[in-house]
Amino acid sequence: MTTAAPAGRTLAHPARDEIRLEAVLHALADPMRLRVVRELAGCGGELSCSQIELPVTKSTTTHHFRVLRESGVLRQSYRGTAKLNGLRRDDLDALFPGLLQRILDAADRQSDRLGEAGGGAARR
Amino acid sequence: MTTAAPAGRTLAHPARDEIRLEAVLHALADPMRLRVVRELAGCGGELSCSQIELPVTKSTTTHHFRVLRESGVLRQSYRGTAKLNGLRRDDLDALFPGLLQRILDAADRQSDRLGEAGGGAARR
Repeated sequence: MTTAAPAGRTLAHPARDEIRLEAVLHALADPMRLRVVRELAGCGGELSCSQIELPVTKSTTTHHFRVLRESGVLRQSYRGTAKLNGLRRDDLDALFPGLLQRILDAADRQSDRLGEAGGGAARR
Repeated sequence: MTTAAPAGRTLAHPARDEIRLEAVLHALADPMRLRVVRELAGCGGELSCSQIELPVTKSTTTHHFRVLRESGVLRQSYRGTAKLNGLRRDDLDALFPGLLQRILDAADRQSDRLGEAGGGAARR
């Protein structure tokens, strides 16, 4: 059950037609942000910021989530005191069919090749 | 017919297994660099830097080509006094199947949507 966000706690998101390919690629070009997106894709739903553990400071984590939100890659919403994050798959697929999945596949292949843990394996 | 580059004029390129997804996405996240890649994809072969006209200074153009080369997106080689550029499609497709084409398709769709000239149309 969702709780309405108090006034002033609404987060700015680009509308679907404001999302730009260059901004999406920029958002996904960072290893930490790509990791967030892989975790969200792996869980298939929403995760709070605290459920996605990144080896960076809290302020850097906040920055990464903001870049992902402002580029249109994910949607953030408040539920009580938690900030929940979900991929904007429908919007991205409508604008750039298959692109997000191809990038996720490429990230999986690279992780396998380099012997790194994938997004799912890194989730707590 | 190729001409061997004089000593000292060899350009550094990552080997295939040194190419990283994040660097490729970063290289393609810039509008000018994406334009270069679309032009090279549209021509299907090599183009010299001077054949790809960008509305930026020469030093900025050189920077963009270096980022594209160092990320593994394109290969630069000297032929006489000209620096030729060609996409590393084989390497990218081997590492990240279908990714480059999906990004090119997404760029085409966005250009159509926004009413911009595509990579091919912008080529002189």
